[in-house]
Amino acid sequence: VLCGATEHASVRAPAEALKGEGFEVETLRLTGGGDLDLEHLAGRLRPDTVLVAQMLVQNEFGSIYPVRDVARLVRARSPSAALHVDAIQAVGKIEVSIGALGADSLSLTAHKIHGPKGAGALVTADAALLRPLAFGGGQEHGLRPGTENVAAIAGLGAAAEIADRTRESTHAALLARREAFVRGAGRIPCARLLEPGRSVSPAIAAVLIPGAPAEVRMHHLEERGVIVSAGSACQSRRNEVSPALTALGLAAEEARCVLRFSFSRSTTLEDVSSALGALETVCRELEEARR
Amino acid sequence: VLCGATEHASVRAPAEALKGEGFEVETLRLTGGGDLDLEHLAGRLRPDTVLVAQMLVQNEFGSIYPVRDVARLVRARSPSAALHVDAIQAVGKIEVSIGALGADSLSLTAHKIHGPKGAGALVTADAALLRPLAFGGGQEHGLRPGTENVAAIAGLGAAAEIADRTRESTHAALLARREAFVRGAGRIPCARLLEPGRSVSPAIAAVLIPGAPAEVRMHHLEERGVIVSAGSACQSRRNEVSPALTALGLAAEEARCVLRFSFSRSTTLEDVSSALGALETVCRELEEARR
Repeated sequence: VLCGATEHASVRAPAEALKGEGFEVETLRLTGGGDLDLEHLAGRLRPDTVLVAQMLVQNEFGSIYPVRDVARLVRARSPSAALHVDAIQAVGKIEVSIGALGADSLSLTAHKIHGPKGAGALVTADAALLRPLAFGGGQEHGLRPGTENVAAIAGLGAAAEIADRTRESTHAALLARREAFVRGAGRIPCARLLEPGRSVSPAIAAVLIPGAPAEVRMHHLEERGVIVSAGSACQSRRNEVSPALTALGLAAEEARCVLRFSFSRSTTLEDVSSALGALETVCRELEEARR
Repeated sequence: VLCGATEHASVRAPAEALKGEGFEVETLRLTGGGDLDLEHLAGRLRPDTVLVAQMLVQNEFGSIYPVRDVARLVRARSPSAALHVDAIQAVGKIEVSIGALGADSLSLTAHKIHGPKGAGALVTADAALLRPLAFGGGQEHGLRPGTENVAAIAGLGAAAEIADRTRESTHAALLARREAFVRGAGRIPCARLLEPGRSVSPAIAAVLIPGAPAEVRMHHLEERGVIVSAGSACQSRRNEVSPALTALGLAAEEARCVLRFSFSRSTTLEDVSSALGALETVCRELEEARR
């Protein structure tokens, strides 16, 4: 089992759990520039590799990874391996097609495309790949039992339809918001934009601002009505350092100073400019407090 | 592992799956009168029994089972066994308390108490009993990963609060509806009310009407606006005979002729009388069609 260098906990933790079942699990690497190290991957793919997981868009800093190249390597070197792609941050922002990616399975979730929390989808090229983890009334073709979360499932369907239909206009709008944000963030002393890899998602801007933990800035920004995150929501509950930021080569103290700004199709340019204003104020105040 | 005689598929199927993991799994028995055969249970409980599952209210015909007596036997004979109670049909209709029952875990669901589909609860006497089946972002104390279905969870909480507060008045109302239904159903030729065990839930009336499969009557009733079920919703998707009805000693052809009528606190006496009217009409028409 090979696990991408910067996977979300929803992939990292199951990969870790597979070790307990006797699987050899390896974490892949990034190049110095923060892209996938395909040469390293090629060397790790074995004829008996059963599973490779590589996300499409990184959730903490937005790198868009060359999953198609990963698929080609996997097919060539590990013919019996399945390729799983976490496309949760990609859907609705960039083109996503399980066929074009060459993946076997692909995950997406409603609450990242303006749908309700609680419903997601695992798209498979071949349903026979899946085995149930729980057993019961035969719902979802016997793959996951339990009375279905009908409202959220319908919401996911509607949200996915809208996300697909508006993808190009959303992309353009996000790009304009992100560019405005990046220009403004350049004025903040010591702020460093993280843009690892060959391209980044227009929905995410990760900024490293040394001098205070990201959580502190996050709370100060929240008081000003600006909601950002420090690492992913799933990691921020614990005090651990983001493994994805660590994989970029950041030291623990740097990784703790990374804020993630996200843009959606409902973010306005005014929102961007007030977020920038709040960020400048928070940085100035924290700087003054330190003196 | 001991599995109650008439458990829902949500318990029966996992018990079956445990066989594949090497557990010895036995299904318990009912007495001739349709109550739990506690003598048989006592004989099957071993010092190395790890799990006993016994539902509180049967979902297809409403028997209320003496779970407290089961708990006493389990504690006395299998001190290391956990007792799981499916209380899904009981909550809001009769008193349910994990402590009073002497159970280790108890399941309930929102959509049986007028809450939204998609949220349920597994109540435990000791959370240490549980181990996760899936791994990820650490939600739900690490027991079940994934962004929570917030709306449905809030709905479950609200529904449970209302179900608890109105339980006694609901019980009285259901009892009156069921009694009216039972009186009326007595007028239908050949209809036989199933009331196995020492007492039945006021929310359920199971009626065996020979001469046509329950599904046929179900569809005819549906056309007249009366929604009933043939077996449990989870079983009715397949063509199998209800194992719970079989456990009552019914022959397969009898089991296929059992209709379940359910009453809720929003069922009116007028609903009951129009359901009875529709049932009489459907039975008469089917009888005429057979001649």
